[in-house]
Amino acid sequence: MPPDRSTLITQIGELVTNDPDQPGFAAVADAALVIEDGTVAWTGPAGQAPAADTAVDAGGRAVLPGFVDSHAHLVFAGERSAEFAARMAGRPYAAGGILTTVAATRAASDDALRANLRRLAAEMLAQGTTTFECKSGYGLTVADEARAVALAAEITPEATYLGAHVVPPEFAGDVAGYVDLVCGPMLDACAPHARWVDVFCEDGAFGADEAAAVLAAGRARGLSARVHANQLGPGPGIRVAAAAGAASADHCTFLTGADLDTIVSTGMVATLLPGAEFGTRQPYPDARRLLDAGATVALATDCNPGSSFTSSMAFCAALAVRDMRMTTQEAVWAATAGGARALRRTDVGHLTAGARADLILLDAPSHAYLAYRPGVPQVAAVWQAGRLAAGSVP
Amino acid sequence: MPPDRSTLITQIGELVTNDPDQPGFAAVADAALVIEDGTVAWTGPAGQAPAADTAVDAGGRAVLPGFVDSHAHLVFAGERSAEFAARMAGRPYAAGGILTTVAATRAASDDALRANLRRLAAEMLAQGTTTFECKSGYGLTVADEARAVALAAEITPEATYLGAHVVPPEFAGDVAGYVDLVCGPMLDACAPHARWVDVFCEDGAFGADEAAAVLAAGRARGLSARVHANQLGPGPGIRVAAAAGAASADHCTFLTGADLDTIVSTGMVATLLPGAEFGTRQPYPDARRLLDAGATVALATDCNPGSSFTSSMAFCAALAVRDMRMTTQEAVWAATAGGARALRRTDVGHLTAGARADLILLDAPSHAYLAYRPGVPQVAAVWQAGRLAAGSVP
Repeated sequence: MPPDRSTLITQIGELVTNDPDQPGFAAVADAALVIEDGTVAWTGPAGQAPAADTAVDAGGRAVLPGFVDSHAHLVFAGERSAEFAARMAGRPYAAGGILTTVAATRAASDDALRANLRRLAAEMLAQGTTTFECKSGYGLTVADEARAVALAAEITPEATYLGAHVVPPEFAGDVAGYVDLVCGPMLDACAPHARWVDVFCEDGAFGADEAAAVLAAGRARGLSARVHANQLGPGPGIRVAAAAGAASADHCTFLTGADLDTIVSTGMVATLLPGAEFGTRQPYPDARRLLDAGATVALATDCNPGSSFTSSMAFCAALAVRDMRMTTQEAVWAATAGGARALRRTDVGHLTAGARADLILLDAPSHAYLAYRPGVPQVAAVWQAGRLAAGSVP
Repeated sequence: MPPDRSTLITQIGELVTNDPDQPGFAAVADAALVIEDGTVAWTGPAGQAPAADTAVDAGGRAVLPGFVDSHAHLVFAGERSAEFAARMAGRPYAAGGILTTVAATRAASDDALRANLRRLAAEMLAQGTTTFECKSGYGLTVADEARAVALAAEITPEATYLGAHVVPPEFAGDVAGYVDLVCGPMLDACAPHARWVDVFCEDGAFGADEAAAVLAAGRARGLSARVHANQLGPGPGIRVAAAAGAASADHCTFLTGADLDTIVSTGMVATLLPGAEFGTRQPYPDARRLLDAGATVALATDCNPGSSFTSSMAFCAALAVRDMRMTTQEAVWAATAGGARALRRTDVGHLTAGARADLILLDAPSHAYLAYRPGVPQVAAVWQAGRLAAGSVP
């Protein structure tokens, strides 16, 4: 079904524009917006709105840019609720958990992986996420990584090759051998499907030299870099990310002053993933320190079956406000425009003329309700490239 | 529309029964359940299920008792999102906030209050809450409290008279005069509509003698007692609740050893409201200390426009697991059977033969997903007294 040629949404109580000409969060009251051919054609005062083929009365409710979830691990099989429940009951974080998912993913059929991935993507869209990144990383063989990246590319242009997620059991004791595979035949098989190369740079995963090699190999194949950095402890992740020109360093829980300086001076995005700290009962990253230093901060879900199985950007925004001391405006900017920056996208994350018509109509009068009413489903309707998503009731 | 005479739900991956013959959480795998005339008529192994007029295939998903939200303030007008956003941005908790809602509520028409109340009740039902308590407390005049309790009684048998919520401005400096009103003409007007009498026993609200007087007056009119106790600091709340034979002491954030002993020895329920700590960035109550001492713990939302505007019991259960160190089983029991205990109800909170057919079909294989997938809407269908709620898609 093609989108209507033009749709007017009027009587918008608060239109979050994130106007790129203004620093950070931007919103206007009593506004209207026109969608044409999948794009935002016009925004302005409700009283000056032009006519359109279809009209939607927002009745004073808020309209936001669709969420941009720049960090998600969605190609997997199986689940780990028992591991989660055990961890919450006091058993320590089991680093081997990822390998449980690797085994299940390798054993799954293409169709099973695709069905799970599409179910999660639909769930995300229903919750207002209109752009998302999707990583491989639970295959860890040439064939399994290639199919993971290819499956991700079926549903998002932001497919990420994360062969360097963890060292698989068959390479135990031979990290160098695995890095050679990741930088060689596995990259050859994955690069055609991916936009991004990512690496988990952490004690117990990949060290500075290994991570740098993976990113350099990916870049040589035309992929852009992003890095899992400084999640579980201090380390070289930020430095490695900067050297590779990474768009984003993700997690950023343990940052030295030098790391902070690097993030600010390079302009790389610090992507915070509070769902992971929620799901592992770890301390949250210090968002205020980053923001106060002038860093660009994004929020993402880290949706994955181990450490953070939420797909709710609204939940992450609420955590950011309560537990990371971001303002409601900072959190909503980070979950929309921040995510767009982390993916180097200029067409999403804002609602000004020319943007892709990705938007959320909230059942609430302002963006602040995402944190003010935590856990409550408040997405009335979602448009993605101008199309009304299934289940939306504007 | 009458409910079907009988409905079979089969292929239930996990049926949370909370069998009252067992201590705490109880569940069975590969189960079925039959609803007849609004009541649970049978539960047992899926392979032994009897026939019914209608059959629902749960396909391995979990079925839980409907949530019992034993603490909610739903009769109000206005909203306080700006106050919330300011508080989160670092301005201290404004005790005067309640009076903002009092002014808006007094100014609202009956129809406006009723519409807001019904909207919230519908929102709660869609999220799986099939029984809820509802307090007055934003009127604080004889007429305004009476209409609030009467409105609450329109939609729940668990209507609570909370004239002693806060001292209204027209009685500033004359707490005794206001308590006389609460115990006299206001009680006369409210008692016919209410089941419960409640008091906010806290420094800055009502002291021990005043709270005891309010509860005694209510009990003399046939109301049963419940108490807001020890939320903001240590105090006499638990002692007062025990003396009044209260069903529940709510909040319980600051408890002495003697308070804990009193809770355990009287068997009163300790109702924890983590949404309030989330919304005010206060420390969470020590659920483990209560549970380990043998106390009966309930979880409720405290849904209100100031300190805790969530209506999501699933969100509260997730907070209870992550931030109060309850197990997933303890949290789900507390959000269902615990709430029933706090309301002295034996017909809800469990799914064994004879219970009211209040149940939730989750889009997930186990109860643990409420915390494992925080913020994600996972309620596929809700039955209340055997009726499928609007919007349910079993």
